[in-house]
Amino acid sequence: MRLLIKNAKALLGAHAPGVSLVAGGRMAELPSIADGWLLAENGVITALGGMDTWPGITDWNDLEVIDATDRYVLPGWCDPHTHTVFAAPREEEFVDKIKGLTYQEIAARGGGILNSARKLRAMDEDALFRAASERLNGMMRQGTVAVEIKSGYGLTVESELKMLRVVKRLKEALPLRIRATLLAAHALPTEFANDRDGYVRMITSELIPQVASEGLADFVDVFCETNYFTVAELERILETGAQHGLPGKVHVNQFTSIGGIQAAVRQGALSVDHLEVMEEADLDVLQGTGTIPTLLPSCSFFLRIPYAPARALIDRGLPVALATDHNPGSTPSGNMNLVLSLACIQLRMLPEEAVNAATLNAAAAMGVEQELGGLTVGKRASLIITRPVPSLAYLPYAFGTDHIDTVLIDGRPVRSGEALA
Amino acid sequence: MRLLIKNAKALLGAHAPGVSLVAGGRMAELPSIADGWLLAENGVITALGGMDTWPGITDWNDLEVIDATDRYVLPGWCDPHTHTVFAAPREEEFVDKIKGLTYQEIAARGGGILNSARKLRAMDEDALFRAASERLNGMMRQGTVAVEIKSGYGLTVESELKMLRVVKRLKEALPLRIRATLLAAHALPTEFANDRDGYVRMITSELIPQVASEGLADFVDVFCETNYFTVAELERILETGAQHGLPGKVHVNQFTSIGGIQAAVRQGALSVDHLEVMEEADLDVLQGTGTIPTLLPSCSFFLRIPYAPARALIDRGLPVALATDHNPGSTPSGNMNLVLSLACIQLRMLPEEAVNAATLNAAAAMGVEQELGGLTVGKRASLIITRPVPSLAYLPYAFGTDHIDTVLIDGRPVRSGEALA
Repeated sequence: MRLLIKNAKALLGAHAPGVSLVAGGRMAELPSIADGWLLAENGVITALGGMDTWPGITDWNDLEVIDATDRYVLPGWCDPHTHTVFAAPREEEFVDKIKGLTYQEIAARGGGILNSARKLRAMDEDALFRAASERLNGMMRQGTVAVEIKSGYGLTVESELKMLRVVKRLKEALPLRIRATLLAAHALPTEFANDRDGYVRMITSELIPQVASEGLADFVDVFCETNYFTVAELERILETGAQHGLPGKVHVNQFTSIGGIQAAVRQGALSVDHLEVMEEADLDVLQGTGTIPTLLPSCSFFLRIPYAPARALIDRGLPVALATDHNPGSTPSGNMNLVLSLACIQLRMLPEEAVNAATLNAAAAMGVEQELGGLTVGKRASLIITRPVPSLAYLPYAFGTDHIDTVLIDGRPVRSGEALA
Repeated sequence: MRLLIKNAKALLGAHAPGVSLVAGGRMAELPSIADGWLLAENGVITALGGMDTWPGITDWNDLEVIDATDRYVLPGWCDPHTHTVFAAPREEEFVDKIKGLTYQEIAARGGGILNSARKLRAMDEDALFRAASERLNGMMRQGTVAVEIKSGYGLTVESELKMLRVVKRLKEALPLRIRATLLAAHALPTEFANDRDGYVRMITSELIPQVASEGLADFVDVFCETNYFTVAELERILETGAQHGLPGKVHVNQFTSIGGIQAAVRQGALSVDHLEVMEEADLDVLQGTGTIPTLLPSCSFFLRIPYAPARALIDRGLPVALATDHNPGSTPSGNMNLVLSLACIQLRMLPEEAVNAATLNAAAAMGVEQELGGLTVGKRASLIITRPVPSLAYLPYAFGTDHIDTVLIDGRPVRSGEALA
C-alpha cells in the first residue's frame, strides 16, 4: 500500500531523524517544507521533500495520490494524558456547580471520582469498550492519532484490571496508538477510607505486579495532591512501578504545590502533568531532567482554575507537552484542536510551540516518539491534512472552527475530506 | 413541501405562541415536549406535540419523515451580533499579541479595525461576497439559522455602502435570515483623524439617509467606548437612525463604563451589546426597558477580558441574549455551540438559560422573533437535530465536541446527518 501526498502548502513538523523532543527556544522552530510531497509505504513515511525535488515515481500501480494544494499536512495530534475509559458523563455535577454547590457538597451527594468509580464498577467490559470506542472515534476524527488512557475509576483490583483490559481491547480494535497507565491511586476508595496504607499496599503488592506481568499497562500514575495521595505515597508507588518496568506519569501541582514534582523527578518519571500551581522550586527542579512537563489547558478552562505557566517553563529551556485530560469530571472534551487554541490564547504559546507540544513532545510524553510526532522518514504516516487555511497561526486563532479535512493513521483514512475525493 | 419529525427525545424551546422574550427567572424554563413530533409545511411549523398525540396523517405523499429517536430537536441558533463580512483574518496580530506587543504597538504597525478597513476598501464586492458566504456556510453547519451582520470596516460612504450591498446579496443568496446593521461609527478613519465632528456628520447626514432610503440596513450601531465614540456621538447617531426607522444595536461597556447604556436606553435601542464592564447604575437603568442585554463571551475568551455579568442581569429580572461577535480582530469564531459552553462555564448560566438566550432572546435582539427562536406553530422550521446525547446539559458540558447531526432552515437541510439518512 503506497500513498503520495503532493502539492502541500507546507509539510509542518518535518523534524530531522533522531530529533525526539524540542525544548526551550527550539520549541518555536517548527521544521517545515513548503510546497511539499510525502510518500508513505505500508503506513510508514519513506520519503518527503519540496515539489522542486519531485521523486521519480516509476511505478504508479497501487499508488493513492492526494492533491493537498492549499492545504497543510502535519503530524496527527498525540494526546498523552486522558481518562477516556469511563462509564458515563457527569453533566449533572456541572449543573450543580453552576447552581453554586461546592466540591464538598457535590462529593457529599456522591459526586466526583467516586461517582465515576461507582458507575464503572457496575458496568461490564463490553459496554465500557463500546462507549470508549465511540469517544476515541470522535477524537480520531479531530486529528488524534495516539492517546494515553488511564485506569483510576475502578479503585479495586478487579475493576482496575477491568479498565485496563478494556484499554487492551481498544488497542487491538482501533487504528490509533494507545498507551495504558495504571492510576489506581486516583482517589481513596470508600472501602479504604480508614486504611490509606492498606490501599497503597494493595497497589504496590498486588496491582502493579499483576498489571506488569500481564502487560496491561505501560505506565503508572498517582494523583499527588492535598486530600488525595501524599508525596511519600507517590514515591512508594513510582518506585514499585519502576521495579516492574512501568515508568511514572503523574498528576502533580493541580491545586497545591506539595513536592510532587521533586519526588517524580527523583523517581525518573517520564512526565509531570497539570502544573497549574507552580513555585520557583518546582520550575528549578525540572531543569536538566528527562521528565516532561505536560499541560492540560482544557481542564483549567472547564474548572476555571489557573493556567499552567507555559512561558516560564519554556523560558527556562524546558520542553512542554500538551494533552486534553479528557474525563467526565474536569474536562469533558477530547478535542486537541481546542487545546491548541487554548495553548496560544491562554498559555501564550506561539503557534509553532503549540504544534510541537501537541505532536513531537506529546509523543515523547507517552513514549511513542520513535514512530509518531513528526513528518520524518521512518515514522508512521499518521497525519492531518487541513482544509485550505491561510497560515499555521490561523489554526489556533480561528478557534472553535473545524480546520481538518482528512486524517490518516498508518496511511489509511480515518476521516476522508475533499483532499481525498 | 411537508416534513414530519417523529420520536424526538424532546422538542426543546417549544414556547407558547406569542412568547417573544424570556427574562429573569423565566429564562431557566425551557418549554419542552418529551417524545415529540413536529410537522412543517412550506418551511413553517404547522403542528407539534408528544407522540401520545400523534397526528392523523392521511396524506403521506410528498412527506419527508425524519426519525429523531434519541435526538433532541431545538430551534436553530440566532446570532444577533457579528462582523462576518470582512476582507481577511488577522492572525498576524494574534501572534504579535502572544509575543507581548500592546494594542498601541499593534495599532502603530497598522493593526486593529483600521487594518481591516484598509483591506476591505481594497477588495471588490464579489470577493467579499465569496469570503463571507463561505464563513456563513460554516456557521449554518454549526446550527446558526439567523445572523446579524454589521458594516464598519469601510469607514467611507462608498465602502460602508459596499459592505451593506454585500450583506444584501448574502440575504438573497443564502437560506439563513440576515439582518444588516450600519456601523460606520466603528472607528475614526484616518481621513477624519482631526475632524471627529465631520465624520459623525457624514454618518448622520449622508450615510444614514442613503442606507435607509435604499433599504440597506435594519439597524444602526456605534462603538461607544473610550478612544472610540463618545456618548454624545452615540446619541446623535441613534437619534438620526430612529428618525429613519433604524433602531439602535450598540457596542457599550466593553472596556469602560461611560454612560453608553443610559444613552442607548434613552434612544430606545433594541440591544446593548458586550457589557463586560458594568457598574450598578448600568444594571439599574436596563430594568423596565425594552433594550436587550446581549453578551459575547467568545470575545472575552479570546481577548482575556472580563466576562459580562450574566447572573447579575438575570437575577435583576432582565433578559439576556447571546451572540458570537464573529470578527477578525477580537473573535475569530462564529461557533454558537462554543458560545453555549462559554455561557455555562464562564457566565454561570444554566443550560436552559443559555439555550433561551441563544434562540428566543437572540431572535428578539435582532428583530426576527416573530419567525424564529422557538419551536412554535407559525415559526419557521429552522432547527437543529442533535446527535444522540444523554441530556440538554450535555450540550454545553461536553465542550468542543460537535453535537449536531442535522440543520434545517425553512424545512430544508443545510447539513444532513444520520437522522436524515
